[in-house]
Amino acid sequence: MKKDINIKEVAKKAGVSIATVSRVFNNSGTVKESTRKKIEAVIEETGYYPNVLARELAEKKTHLIGLIVHSMIGEGIPRMINGVNEVLEEHDFNLLIACTNGNLQSELKHFEIFRSKRVEGILFATREFKEEHRELIKKIPIPVVVLLQRTEQEQISFVTFDNYTFAKDATKKLIALGHRKFAFIGGPPTSVNAMERQLGFCDALKENGLSMEVELSRNGDFTIEAGYQQMEEILAIQNEVTAVIAVNDGMAIGALNCLQDHEIGVPNDISVLGLDDTVLAKASRLKLSGVHYSYTNLGKQGANLLLKQMESEELLYEKIVMPYEIHLRESVSEC
Amino acid sequence: MKKDINIKEVAKKAGVSIATVSRVFNNSGTVKESTRKKIEAVIEETGYYPNVLARELAEKKTHLIGLIVHSMIGEGIPRMINGVNEVLEEHDFNLLIACTNGNLQSELKHFEIFRSKRVEGILFATREFKEEHRELIKKIPIPVVVLLQRTEQEQISFVTFDNYTFAKDATKKLIALGHRKFAFIGGPPTSVNAMERQLGFCDALKENGLSMEVELSRNGDFTIEAGYQQMEEILAIQNEVTAVIAVNDGMAIGALNCLQDHEIGVPNDISVLGLDDTVLAKASRLKLSGVHYSYTNLGKQGANLLLKQMESEELLYEKIVMPYEIHLRESVSEC
Repeated sequence: MKKDINIKEVAKKAGVSIATVSRVFNNSGTVKESTRKKIEAVIEETGYYPNVLARELAEKKTHLIGLIVHSMIGEGIPRMINGVNEVLEEHDFNLLIACTNGNLQSELKHFEIFRSKRVEGILFATREFKEEHRELIKKIPIPVVVLLQRTEQEQISFVTFDNYTFAKDATKKLIALGHRKFAFIGGPPTSVNAMERQLGFCDALKENGLSMEVELSRNGDFTIEAGYQQMEEILAIQNEVTAVIAVNDGMAIGALNCLQDHEIGVPNDISVLGLDDTVLAKASRLKLSGVHYSYTNLGKQGANLLLKQMESEELLYEKIVMPYEIHLRESVSEC
Repeated sequence: MKKDINIKEVAKKAGVSIATVSRVFNNSGTVKESTRKKIEAVIEETGYYPNVLARELAEKKTHLIGLIVHSMIGEGIPRMINGVNEVLEEHDFNLLIACTNGNLQSELKHFEIFRSKRVEGILFATREFKEEHRELIKKIPIPVVVLLQRTEQEQISFVTFDNYTFAKDATKKLIALGHRKFAFIGGPPTSVNAMERQLGFCDALKENGLSMEVELSRNGDFTIEAGYQQMEEILAIQNEVTAVIAVNDGMAIGALNCLQDHEIGVPNDISVLGLDDTVLAKASRLKLSGVHYSYTNLGKQGANLLLKQMESEELLYEKIVMPYEIHLRESVSEC
C-alpha cells in the first residue's frame, strides 16, 4: 500500500526544493535533466505519488474564493455572481458558491467548509447580518467581504445598495408629482433590505408632513401573486390612493395586474412604482417605473475589494454603497 | 510507478462499484467475500495501485457534492440549484457550485478543482455535451450525473427535459387550432436545448405537410429585445403569419410587445407561444401560452440519482427525461 511519505520528504531525499519536485510532477517549468533523474529515482524508491493537496501545500495558494449566498432566486443574485466571477477570472481565481437559504446553521457550516477547502477569501451575502456572523468573521483568519448588507460599527468590509435612500428618493419624486395618498407593499419582516426600503418610504412621507393609514402598508413575499393580493386588500380598504409603491418588481407587477382586472387606469387613476429594475419591468403591460441599481457591478466591486484585502499587508476595511438611478416610466404620472 | 489503470476500470472489470473497490483497498465496510475475491483477482491481473486521492476519498467522506453550471442567468438554473440543494440537505450533503459560462476550459478546470476538494459526486450542466466532457467523465473515479443535456450511447447518467418532443407537441397543438403560417424565433446555434426545440417545431410542420419560408425562422439571444427585433423583421418580410413560436419566454414577450406597438391583435391576428413557462409569462400584457417543465424537480431528480449512484455497489446509469405540460392561454386562439 501507499508509503507514508510526502512531497517534503521526497524533496529532502533528493536534495532539492519542494517546488522542484512539483515541477517534475506537473511537467511545468524547466528542471535540469540530472535533477529530474534524481527525483524520479527517489519517487521510484519510495512509491510516492503526489496528491493535489500536497501540490497545493507546496504552492500555498489554492486560487479559490468562496461565495456564500442566501438565495439564487430572482434576477439580482445570479447577476451578482456573474459580476464576481468576471473579476475573479481576470485575476485567475476560481469561485466556489454555496447557497444557504439564509439558514444561520447552513451559513456557519459553509464558512467552515470553505475554510477547510482553503479558500483564500470569502464573499458573504445574507438576508440579515447577525451577531453570530460578526463573531465568526472576526475570528476567521481569511479576508471576508459582506455583500448586500451593512455591517456598521464593525471592522468588516461590505458592498451594498442604499435601500433606505433610494426608496426615500423615489417616494419624494412621487410626492413632487402631487401624490399625497400612498399605499406601500413591503416585503417579509425577515428581509432587512425590504425593511430599509420601507423605512425610506416612511421617512419621505414624514419629511413632507404626510401620513398614511397603517392598513395601507402591507407585506408580501415578493411574488406577483402576493402583489396582486395585497393590492386587492388595499382597494377594499379605501379608494383614495393615488400611488402604490412596491418593494420589488414582482409585487408591483401583481399590483398592476390587479388594477387592470379592476379596470382602474394606470397611471391615470393610480401610479405604480417598484423599488427594483428587473426584466419583469420590461415585460409588464406598461413600462413599470422603478429604481435601477446594478447587481453585476456590486458583485464586481465586492470581488475587487476582496482581492485588495487579500493582497494588502495591512488590515483593510472598506464600506461601499453602490449608486442608483430612479426611472419614472409609463406607470407613473402627475396627480 | 502507477500503472495505466484507474479505480473506475478496476470496478468495471470486476463488475462492481468504485466504492466497493475502495472498501476492499481500505478494509473498510463490509464486502461480500466473493466480491472481494473478484476484485482482488482484477487487481492482481491489472497491477492496479490506488492513488492517494482515491484512497483518501474512500477513507474520509467529505459529504460534499460539486455542481458545475454554465449559467446562473434566468429562472431555470437557480430553481434547479434549489432543487439539488433541497435533496442534498435532506441527506446531509453540502453543495459547492461553480459557474463556467459554458467555457470548456473552465468546465474541465472545475472538474479538477472539485476532485481536488474531494467532492463525492459531481452534477454537471453545460450548454453542449462534448467529446471532451465524455472523455473526462469516463476517466474520473467519482459518480457524475449530467443535467439538461443528453449523453446518448454513453454509460453516463443524465436528467434532462424533452425539448424536441414538447416543442413538436406544442406546435401540433397550434396546427390543430388551424394555424398554417408560422414564424419561429429560435436561440443561438450554441444552445443545444434551443436547437432541439427548433427541430421539434420543424418536424411538426413536416409531419403535417406544412412548410415555412426560411427567413421566417429567426435566431435571437433569448432577451426581450431580441424577440422584439426578430418580430419586427418577421413583420417586414410578410404579413400572412398567424402564429409565432419563440424558443423562450423572454423572446415571446418581445414579440408580444412588438405586435402591440404595431397594433396587431394577439391572439386575434397572431397567436404567440413561448416554449417556456417563467414568471415573465405571468407578468406579460396578456397571459402567454407556453410549456411547463420544472427545473426544481429536475434538480431533485439529478441529486437523487447522483446519491443513488454513490451508494450503489454496482455501476449504475440512468437516463431520465422529465415530464412537461402544454398550457394554451390568452395569447393563443383558433385561426
